[in-house]
Amino acid sequence: MTEQMVTEYVRNAWYAAAWAEELTDQPLPRTLLGENVVLFRGASGVIGALEDICPHRMAPLSLGVVEGDNLRCGYHGLLFDCAGKCQEIPGQVNIPPKAHARHFPLVERWQLAWIWMGEPDRADPELIPNWFWLDHPDWDDSHGTIKYDCNYALIVDNLIDLSHTTFTHKGTIGTEDVAKTPILSERRNGAVYVERVMTQTEPSPFYKKAGGFTGKVDRWQKITYAPPGDMVIDAGAVPAGSNDPNQGIDTRIIGYLTPETDTTVFHFWAFARDFALGDDTVTSMIADQIEITFNEDKALLDGQQRNIDATPGRKLLDNNADAGVVLCRKLLDERLAADQADPA
Amino acid sequence: MTEQMVTEYVRNAWYAAAWAEELTDQPLPRTLLGENVVLFRGASGVIGALEDICPHRMAPLSLGVVEGDNLRCGYHGLLFDCAGKCQEIPGQVNIPPKAHARHFPLVERWQLAWIWMGEPDRADPELIPNWFWLDHPDWDDSHGTIKYDCNYALIVDNLIDLSHTTFTHKGTIGTEDVAKTPILSERRNGAVYVERVMTQTEPSPFYKKAGGFTGKVDRWQKITYAPPGDMVIDAGAVPAGSNDPNQGIDTRIIGYLTPETDTTVFHFWAFARDFALGDDTVTSMIADQIEITFNEDKALLDGQQRNIDATPGRKLLDNNADAGVVLCRKLLDERLAADQADPA
Amino acid sequence: MTEQMVTEYVRNAWYAAAWAEELTDQPLPRTLLGENVVLFRGASGVIGALEDICPHRMAPLSLGVVEGDNLRCGYHGLLFDCAGKCQEIPGQVNIPPKAHARHFPLVERWQLAWIWMGEPDRADPELIPNWFWLDHPDWDDSHGTIKYDCNYALIVDNLIDLSHTTFTHKGTIGTEDVAKTPILSERRNGAVYVERVMTQTEPSPFYKKAGGFTGKVDRWQKITYAPPGDMVIDAGAVPAGSNDPNQGIDTRIIGYLTPETDTTVFHFWAFARDFALGDDTVTSMIADQIEITFNEDKALLDGQQRNIDATPGRKLLDNNADAGVVLCRKLLDERLAADQADPA
Repeated sequence: MTEQMVTEYVRNAWYAAAWAEELTDQPLPRTLLGENVVLFRGASGVIGALEDICPHRMAPLSLGVVEGDNLRCGYHGLLFDCAGKCQEIPGQVNIPPKAHARHFPLVERWQLAWIWMGEPDRADPELIPNWFWLDHPDWDDSHGTIKYDCNYALIVDNLIDLSHTTFTHKGTIGTEDVAKTPILSERRNGAVYVERVMTQTEPSPFYKKAGGFTGKVDRWQKITYAPPGDMVIDAGAVPAGSNDPNQGIDTRIIGYLTPETDTTVFHFWAFARDFALGDDTVTSMIADQIEITFNEDKALLDGQQRNIDATPGRKLLDNNADAGVVLCRKLLDERLAADQADPA
Repeated sequence: MTEQMVTEYVRNAWYAAAWAEELTDQPLPRTLLGENVVLFRGASGVIGALEDICPHRMAPLSLGVVEGDNLRCGYHGLLFDCAGKCQEIPGQVNIPPKAHARHFPLVERWQLAWIWMGEPDRADPELIPNWFWLDHPDWDDSHGTIKYDCNYALIVDNLIDLSHTTFTHKGTIGTEDVAKTPILSERRNGAVYVERVMTQTEPSPFYKKAGGFTGKVDRWQKITYAPPGDMVIDAGAVPAGSNDPNQGIDTRIIGYLTPETDTTVFHFWAFARDFALGDDTVTSMIADQIEITFNEDKALLDGQQRNIDATPGRKLLDNNADAGVVLCRKLLDERLAADQADPA
Repeated sequence: MTEQMVTEYVRNAWYAAAWAEELTDQPLPRTLLGENVVLFRGASGVIGALEDICPHRMAPLSLGVVEGDNLRCGYHGLLFDCAGKCQEIPGQVNIPPKAHARHFPLVERWQLAWIWMGEPDRADPELIPNWFWLDHPDWDDSHGTIKYDCNYALIVDNLIDLSHTTFTHKGTIGTEDVAKTPILSERRNGAVYVERVMTQTEPSPFYKKAGGFTGKVDRWQKITYAPPGDMVIDAGAVPAGSNDPNQGIDTRIIGYLTPETDTTVFHFWAFARDFALGDDTVTSMIADQIEITFNEDKALLDGQQRNIDATPGRKLLDNNADAGVVLCRKLLDERLAADQADPA
């Protein structure tokens, strides 16, 4: 039996906050881990994340304007730098210490802006997930953001157990064999690792289109989940029995799950591929397919949440295919406990 | 003084859940008595009602697909029969007892699907209201469903006291005389019976149209309410003094009030007539008039509920015309007490 | 540090309830100070304000019809006069004392209908704010209503501290000098008075248009706030150094802030001017500018409220420019305490 929801957040962790391209001189309001945040990019290219609340009258700073590398409140004009330090209060000389906007460490990497909402001193950029595929010349990617109206743990459950693809994604990535094939699932290097290998199997509609397969294939799904929200799926196929990567396709379906609130979550997703590099038609085609696929999940996940809201206290039933789910939930609980035991 | 709302439900009773024609191989989600239910019809014609929550991950079963006489969850493919018994868990052989979807007895009768949300063993189909007019060759009917955003008891109040028609339904079924004419109201055979007879009276606009009356009429309204939600109005008119049913019209305005929640309710209504049998134009005309009429009620009833929400604790004032209302509320209270005293 | 919100209402005061032109024979529902009210005008021109709840079944009286100087409930036809006295219950002779609709004193003055929601015996029309500009031949006006989704005290803060115009209303009434110019703020005659005088200053875009100024001006803003919601801004300009009212413009931006609920408020505003009298083009142009300007405020104020809702308990930080704000909040608190100490 598994709990319905995980209602706490690991605070000392890097979370994807936005795609780097979303950060401009137009301040971007976004609720992350239940906090109202404003993201912006200064004239020099520097990026900043402040609480979206001016310390003066609590107006949203996101309604203000970027001036140089600073953000000016649109109400009474207080000016803040990227560290939240107040640089100016119009009409007065003295700037009191309380006139400080709360700020969050923010780092640009792998085409994303990563935010740290825990203890600022512990915000070591080395802890950002290694999503090198998004910057590597041997890979190209489609990417986007989808927002689910459900608790973030439900998406961990969803992505770690791909047996659902047989039923939920019949038209795109699902085949009969996925739900039938047993999985290996284990703790590995502080993460949960789930592996499913299908030999002599029918390619999915998407694989036929992307890989040009005409016969059967050998296909794999290797999923790694590192709490709180890092989920990488290594998926690919080669012609059955060929064992030849050159005739096959290799992909990574990468996702970061950043809670907006207890019951809403951003899924920053990227689909990296080792084929058709630079081909915008393929990039768009894949993005469209992924959107369709994730929206099929969204209907179910949002529905799960509505049922959870309507019947609090009930627990989820675990089947054989949930071995990975159970490991993920346990690892996330451990990480939460560690985060709370040592918040500094 | 009457309580604003009745916030409990008689559970051991048959409630109209849907029109039979609404049940197809497309699962129909519907909240009834505060519970999320999915209704569907199998390939053999059998109908089923399950809780709209898969016991596995709590996904809505209504997002699944009907296969034969079973319903398959759209998430991980668990398969349930009409009794909620799990017939298949993809990827595993053993089916644990907990993998059972809650089910509700469901019977098709009088063009409706009737659901029993109490103790299943007590679900005796003989207890279904006798709405024979909907299946009888001497009668034809218009029918539909209207949803009110108010507590179900407010509609009992509305239908048992037709004095409101003088004011609320001036353009259709109301006449000056309705509010002026005293009523008989009494307990009769476990139901509340209210009778109003108007002799030498002006026919309403609707009666003129439907009955072709050119002069005055003798008109009657005989209302029977059986808790929790069965409401039948025997209404008709003959030319004044004629005493001749052959020159008049005889109708039944039948309704079942099925709470969706404390503050929303489905009104499954039928208007049965003994004239213009098989005439689709008349059937449509009446349906249109009834929709207009009930929407006039809806504006007031939804407004009552908003006022009740805004001023909890206040009580309703009873006038002379509320004699029937008072009897109905008392009978409903008795039925609720009996249901709770002997839930098994 | 200032409290986020003022969640109580001064009850013994006149509040603007509607523009007089809004009161017709179509009953107008409006929530004021958290109470559901219906406003209407009888055939003789008399105006009335009743609780929008029929004492019989709690239906909204605003769904009824005006008959002569009375209002008839649209449900069962009870008839009420402007004082809430029940004049008729259809179908019965005796009218019980409880069949009384709660009524509120309502007075028409300065183009507005003023309501008193406290102790009726204390409703002295002499206490209505003296907004003579709206009826005086030397003045003409534009007026309207804007609804904010915020606590009413936030708009007091907004209007008493015009330093925000420099940042919020750059395109209309704001100039660089407003935020830079020190203010005088003091208690005067039971009100708060704030004065800002700018000499040899650039006219705002609006002043250029309205006053036809081509060079610098001497400009003033004199604001008077009388709790709970009366706010009058005396604003104008003359050519710099001229000291000649005949070459300048004189305006009053008048507002009454009437809470709808704790977090929503009606701002009945009028802009009175001593120029272009009778010129409808100017009247419309000013109304358009004011709408644009107040909607710029609304974006910020509604955003403030969202932040307040998200972070209860936090306090507002006061800067130098908030001297008037602090005085206003203190005066309002005193008025609230007095109102509650002596409610009769």
